[in-house]
Amino acid sequence: MSIRIGIFGYGNLGKGIECGIRQNPDMELAAVFTRRDPSTVKTIFEGVNVVSADDVENYADKIDVMIMCGGSATDLPVQTPAMAKLYNVIDSFDTHARIAEHFANVDKTAKEGGKTAIISVGWDPGLFSLNRLYADAILPEGQNYTFWGKGISQGHSDAIRRIDGVADARQYTVPVPEAVEAVRSGSNPELTTRMKHTRECYVVAKDGADKARIEQEIKSMPNYFADYDTTVTFVTQQELDENHGGLPHQGIVLRSGCTGANKEHTHIIEYSLKLDSNPEFTSSVLLAYARAAYKLNKAGDTGCKTVFDVAPAMLSPKSSADIVQYL
Amino acid sequence: MSIRIGIFGYGNLGKGIECGIRQNPDMELAAVFTRRDPSTVKTIFEGVNVVSADDVENYADKIDVMIMCGGSATDLPVQTPAMAKLYNVIDSFDTHARIAEHFANVDKTAKEGGKTAIISVGWDPGLFSLNRLYADAILPEGQNYTFWGKGISQGHSDAIRRIDGVADARQYTVPVPEAVEAVRSGSNPELTTRMKHTRECYVVAKDGADKARIEQEIKSMPNYFADYDTTVTFVTQQELDENHGGLPHQGIVLRSGCTGANKEHTHIIEYSLKLDSNPEFTSSVLLAYARAAYKLNKAGDTGCKTVFDVAPAMLSPKSSADIVQYL
Repeated sequence: MSIRIGIFGYGNLGKGIECGIRQNPDMELAAVFTRRDPSTVKTIFEGVNVVSADDVENYADKIDVMIMCGGSATDLPVQTPAMAKLYNVIDSFDTHARIAEHFANVDKTAKEGGKTAIISVGWDPGLFSLNRLYADAILPEGQNYTFWGKGISQGHSDAIRRIDGVADARQYTVPVPEAVEAVRSGSNPELTTRMKHTRECYVVAKDGADKARIEQEIKSMPNYFADYDTTVTFVTQQELDENHGGLPHQGIVLRSGCTGANKEHTHIIEYSLKLDSNPEFTSSVLLAYARAAYKLNKAGDTGCKTVFDVAPAMLSPKSSADIVQYL
Repeated sequence: MSIRIGIFGYGNLGKGIECGIRQNPDMELAAVFTRRDPSTVKTIFEGVNVVSADDVENYADKIDVMIMCGGSATDLPVQTPAMAKLYNVIDSFDTHARIAEHFANVDKTAKEGGKTAIISVGWDPGLFSLNRLYADAILPEGQNYTFWGKGISQGHSDAIRRIDGVADARQYTVPVPEAVEAVRSGSNPELTTRMKHTRECYVVAKDGADKARIEQEIKSMPNYFADYDTTVTFVTQQELDENHGGLPHQGIVLRSGCTGANKEHTHIIEYSLKLDSNPEFTSSVLLAYARAAYKLNKAGDTGCKTVFDVAPAMLSPKSSADIVQYL
């Protein structure tokens, strides 16, 4: 029997889940839940059951795992704990400072409902977090480095769009190649924020807007841009759509550590992702963990988990005998 | 209280464990077990308790985890099942074709003894296996590629040493750069054995030996060299010792996979290791899994496991609250 997946929220991530389910023969799409009028939601493939979020409580016997596809700022902190009482759930909550609080909220409701939840799934937090933990445990004396990009940062793009006179914008986070190479060399460099990443902004100005003032506002924005070497390029809406319309992303986690009687040997562990579509790849990670949540719940292991609590075998559709082939 | 580690077998791996324990504040070295006369074994650090392997049964209350440091060919298939009855054990068994059989043997004795065993730990099998499984589960449509090197292959070096007229030898396995780049490009190339790796042999000939015949014997050796582009360089023993005396190694696991409504997006997952000392790094992995075996046994989870069965959090010395910081 297939694992019946529900999609809660139908944006880029929800669409990625819709596509990804078709690549997993042990899964099927049970329903998409939306806060919009379901009749206005056009899914990618035909025959998808689109349902009002108001009716979600009526699907308990039709869905094995609900994948929460809302945003971390306001949706998931409310939706995931609410849904974990009714369904096994997966989310990609990525507000790092609030993960412990979110975990506690979800754990409480999941345990009440006898359900299994896995939060903060994706690639960072997610696969990058896993690699930081594995690498730390293996090389206790060393240093971790994470580089993001080149890729679109939605948060930084949104920050630019809020500036007066800006019609649209895209922001790329870009690692500094010399910093990456210094880490790969094993020299354990101390790197400031500015030394690790640059920020490239492509901005569409409204008619008559003061471009010099916009550029100045971007470059001096605290937290987002002030600590970085930032470039601002003004483009037309058409140029933005044609040349910066995709959602590619990349990233690298590195650990440089030492071993030996005199710590004379250096080792570099490097994990990297090059993604044509950030939301589709994130969706693929969520689906693998949906399988794990399903298996864990069948085994009676309820409550909230993170990727650290899930044995790798749980992610695979293969039997134990076939999994040994990966060794 | 510290995790008390026993080392069974004192070669390169055992020495790596001896050094590695000092980098893990939650561990201590209880004893080294050797089949040699203990008085002839000189450990790297002073004050190490070296004991005859014949006395290993007397240490049940002094050791929490025994790390098996023998060879996969003849030692581990016998030693690990025998020891798993008495101790939680970790080994690095790497004869891929016999892992299922070894697993069954160890599982039986570990369960009889109420102990926890984790087999085939290291980097391949081990960390590379983990990455193959994670990447497969996340990108179901795609292809895995593993490249080894540049690094010393002990098995291939031994095969050369068995040739008549050879005094000593070292063999490097080297990935073909064009093959690695083709995979990174996302083109999903079909690669033959010859297209993936070359083999570089450094050979010390005995006085008066026929070098042309030795070179021919190496290059035509089935399984080991015949399917590869192989170079043979004759050197003096001094040159071999000075220039090829270390045990560095490297390797890469790549997965190239696709997502999207029309599978139009390509993603590359890459995991790589650059190791100054292969045995010391492998020892470091074994120690992290020794911690996991200790925790699993405390939790009553007995029998044989592989790296696929061990939740990442089990490897870390950190508390649950601190582990969340990796997210």
